[in-house]
Amino acid sequence: MLDVSAGDASIKRRAMASFLSQRQFTIEWGHCDPAGIVFNGRFFEFFDWGTWSLFESALGVQAHDLAGAFGILGIPLVDVRARFLAPARFGDVVELTSQVREFRRSSFDVEHRLFVRGALAVEGRESRVWASRDASDASLIRSLPIPDEVVARFQVP
Amino acid sequence: MLDVSAGDASIKRRAMASFLSQRQFTIEWGHCDPAGIVFNGRFFEFFDWGTWSLFESALGVQAHDLAGAFGILGIPLVDVRARFLAPARFGDVVELTSQVREFRRSSFDVEHRLFVRGALAVEGRESRVWASRDASDASLIRSLPIPDEVVARFQVP
Amino acid sequence: MLDVSAGDASIKRRAMASFLSQRQFTIEWGHCDPAGIVFNGRFFEFFDWGTWSLFESALGVQAHDLAGAFGILGIPLVDVRARFLAPARFGDVVELTSQVREFRRSSFDVEHRLFVRGALAVEGRESRVWASRDASDASLIRSLPIPDEVVARFQVP
Amino acid sequence: MLDVSAGDASIKRRAMASFLSQRQFTIEWGHCDPAGIVFNGRFFEFFDWGTWSLFESALGVQAHDLAGAFGILGIPLVDVRARFLAPARFGDVVELTSQVREFRRSSFDVEHRLFVRGALAVEGRESRVWASRDASDASLIRSLPIPDEVVARFQVP
Repeated sequence: MLDVSAGDASIKRRAMASFLSQRQFTIEWGHCDPAGIVFNGRFFEFFDWGTWSLFESALGVQAHDLAGAFGILGIPLVDVRARFLAPARFGDVVELTSQVREFRRSSFDVEHRLFVRGALAVEGRESRVWASRDASDASLIRSLPIPDEVVARFQVP
Repeated sequence: MLDVSAGDASIKRRAMASFLSQRQFTIEWGHCDPAGIVFNGRFFEFFDWGTWSLFESALGVQAHDLAGAFGILGIPLVDVRARFLAPARFGDVVELTSQVREFRRSSFDVEHRLFVRGALAVEGRESRVWASRDASDASLIRSLPIPDEVVARFQVP
Repeated sequence: MLDVSAGDASIKRRAMASFLSQRQFTIEWGHCDPAGIVFNGRFFEFFDWGTWSLFESALGVQAHDLAGAFGILGIPLVDVRARFLAPARFGDVVELTSQVREFRRSSFDVEHRLFVRGALAVEGRESRVWASRDASDASLIRSLPIPDEVVARFQVP
Repeated sequence: MLDVSAGDASIKRRAMASFLSQRQFTIEWGHCDPAGIVFNGRFFEFFDWGTWSLFESALGVQAHDLAGAFGILGIPLVDVRARFLAPARFGDVVELTSQVREFRRSSFDVEHRLFVRGALAVEGRESRVWASRDASDASLIRSLPIPDEVVARFQVP
């Protein structure tokens, strides 16, 4: 379905100081499970919020215009991992930071860190692909090289 | 945005015995909130499941083919109400019944009843519209008359 | 399960100008369904956010301390209705206003209005109960009279 | 918050043929995002369903009685990873298999595999802890040795 070409990992772009996006929000009642803590699936929603915010801030393009502005289908997730260090509870005001940790030829990794009262509570890492529809078969998704101008916007001098 | 024409309520179709769809499922941990009971928003997901199942069973068309088979955009929800009589808890095996209660010219009402151990726990009623894109402006959604053949399929002799 | 005493509707408290809570947030990718609009069940999550915010603002008590501060179990939902007038889409910045419309003896109604670009898109109304566990059987939930001091805090001079 | 003792990885129990739990379900409209495919956070809900089903089947204890039956607080998630190989769409009937891949002293790994039309679409791996409240401070969660009888129930002769 998704063609992540073999060469993808071969060209590494230097991990320079990278643009960091932050957002703060409150843990809601409906985010929490019978143990009174955020249900794990919700953190992946939060990570997704973080990635869109990050791209919006770094590229200066509204999240819903991202695909159109760069001629892509989107930035589908191919791999994600999370470590849960401490729970987040109803009413907690949490801070989420999101940052690209590595750009490869046509894929990239976003690191998310969620803090509760200043302490790291959840750590996540998403791998996403810069993707478009296949020119010859629209039901296929194909990875594309990430434009240099995009990568450049994430670098902080 | 949505043009529900004034005449919509004027043609009422007899409420004959109407096709009833049933499904059984288990309340999951992630459906529940810190009070240990199903979070209210989840019931609207369940109602949505029920409506698609009902249409699939009555029309003999897979839910994801419904729009294509009838030349519509979908059956968007315009109004919904729920009454919560008793909680549903993690591990409860619940039964959901769904039934069209009234077909109007281009809209219809679906009644949902969710039972926990045989007792009615939640009652819902959705109003939905038989809708397509406007021919002259694709960003507009317009209600269409529901075909007689569709209505007929919901009637039980 | 829930004992809403018959007398509940008999004592109506004057609908004075009532405290209004507002919050603004962005519609996220994960809130939306294949039609590209917010999935209906999500609006009930938003309403829930609104009710907690409203109580927090009016009573000056953190949402997660509400039950403890007033010796109750919570404010469970017994009835909710929503009308969908226009869709909300990924990236939309929406405004949600929440306001108690009526306090009865032991229950109350909260009205929610969600605006997209200034236009009313969704209207909701929740009925909730001021509830505690039954003194003789902790598995039962029982409605309690809402303290006058609580009602007073929602009134705007 | 969570004390996973250092010795945890030191005692490995042989990975024998392990009990496999299977469930089949349909992808619903509300599971999907504007790309028309299941939103990633939902897969972690599905994994959670799978873990509870697996424990219920292997131990012969209803999921909601698990904590009580074994004197634990629960089996909180400390790490989870997923790889997305192919999308799942509205109406797809999917099969989820769940299996413990390794029991350690007080933690264990569950592998989940989700198949769409027979092809592996999503692969996940959860690490969970056998946990109880700390005897001296109930706000702390502490890992406990997993009883041999529990481990034995997951082994298939």
